[in-house]
Amino acid sequence: MDDPVLLTGAGGRVGQAILGGIGTDHDWRLLDREPLAEKKLPPGTTQDDVYIADVTDRDALSDAVSGVGTIIHLAGDPRPEAPWGSVLRNNIDGTQALFEAAVEADVDKVAFASSNHAVSAFETDRRTPDIYRPESEFLLDGSELPRPGNLYGVSKAAGETLGRYYHDQSDLSVVCVRIGNLTRDHPPIDYERGQAMWLSYRDCAHLFDCCIRADYGYEIVYGISDNDRKYYSIERTREVLGYDPEDNSAEFE
Amino acid sequence: MDDPVLLTGAGGRVGQAILGGIGTDHDWRLLDREPLAEKKLPPGTTQDDVYIADVTDRDALSDAVSGVGTIIHLAGDPRPEAPWGSVLRNNIDGTQALFEAAVEADVDKVAFASSNHAVSAFETDRRTPDIYRPESEFLLDGSELPRPGNLYGVSKAAGETLGRYYHDQSDLSVVCVRIGNLTRDHPPIDYERGQAMWLSYRDCAHLFDCCIRADYGYEIVYGISDNDRKYYSIERTREVLGYDPEDNSAEFE
Repeated sequence: MDDPVLLTGAGGRVGQAILGGIGTDHDWRLLDREPLAEKKLPPGTTQDDVYIADVTDRDALSDAVSGVGTIIHLAGDPRPEAPWGSVLRNNIDGTQALFEAAVEADVDKVAFASSNHAVSAFETDRRTPDIYRPESEFLLDGSELPRPGNLYGVSKAAGETLGRYYHDQSDLSVVCVRIGNLTRDHPPIDYERGQAMWLSYRDCAHLFDCCIRADYGYEIVYGISDNDRKYYSIERTREVLGYDPEDNSAEFE
Repeated sequence: MDDPVLLTGAGGRVGQAILGGIGTDHDWRLLDREPLAEKKLPPGTTQDDVYIADVTDRDALSDAVSGVGTIIHLAGDPRPEAPWGSVLRNNIDGTQALFEAAVEADVDKVAFASSNHAVSAFETDRRTPDIYRPESEFLLDGSELPRPGNLYGVSKAAGETLGRYYHDQSDLSVVCVRIGNLTRDHPPIDYERGQAMWLSYRDCAHLFDCCIRADYGYEIVYGISDNDRKYYSIERTREVLGYDPEDNSAEFE
């Protein structure tokens, strides 16, 4: 296998979706603020590969990133309703600390978990629910300026800009993935927004596998399944990363 | 006169350029971290109109914004080389505090001092010095994603995103002005970049006067004089704000 992959926020929902899908395909290091139960570790990974640290702990980050090829950076406060003080610290300061450590350790790539909330204020009353429907041609493609729907989304947009800065200043490859709604089960049949931005667990794992394997400079891409309903383009995700999703929220079982 | 205008960072260079030009045209409140010498106050403004407070002091901000119509928000660490800890606190957290206070007090407009450093990494070795020259057609217009050249620039881009968020969540009008190089004197004749992004003192004062008087929703505009050399478009600044600059770095005295 190649250089180890560091997964921050490994115990969270996105981290577990990734490890559930590609846990045996890479040599993992896991970082989380909380200890990880054995059942959260992929096969072949032991507690020796786990770093228990806050993402703003710069010394701990420096240890965790040493010798790593790729970082998947998920750690942070994941709540859309998180208060400013928390996202300022955990998401903005924490992401700066992560990028700084990555550059200092000469890491190759960082895949940063951005979010649909970085652009959720595009969903104005005038546009919705039309943009959630298959016939709508409204598509965001990642070149648009952020329009966050909450302070969590502001913090994710700031993380994207930090990624741009560290990419421009160094050889670091950075991909920011604006993750849709990751749910294990198919979204409810009457929840149009949920279907438009559904990301299935297996497509999520595949997408971050692409982030580990592909070559890129700096990218902002959308991370959703190949839903008939969508207002996020995944053309760039396909083109740059080789993303080839298997799921579609229009296909009910 | 209309409702008072609050000027944060009033004692700094941009603040003094503004007050030097339009100091008698508005009813000012001034906020600064440091006491302001009498010579820094415009005619008709007294020390009773001065609030000495850190911009992250939310209680002080709440007092300062009460009854205000427009805020010109300049306060923050102005150093391009400022360390992360300082821009995180003074520029990012301070700007969030300012917007929050503005919305709570039902202020009409905020003009936010963004910076050329929010996009200075567009000035790659491949592009420069060509883009500083009159014949170059490369122009940024404010619709592009930020590419900061330093962490100060990252903090300014974050302030722009905060402005977008607070505009979308409320009736607050927000204009982010990416200020070029504000210098009292004409930039040196052999400093091409400086000439391309020169903003004269009188054009600066006029520009922020426009930000007080014009109607807008959310805007990102460039703030430079009408230089022959430019790689920032000021078309949007003219169109939305009625900006009509008098100076041009190509005109030497």
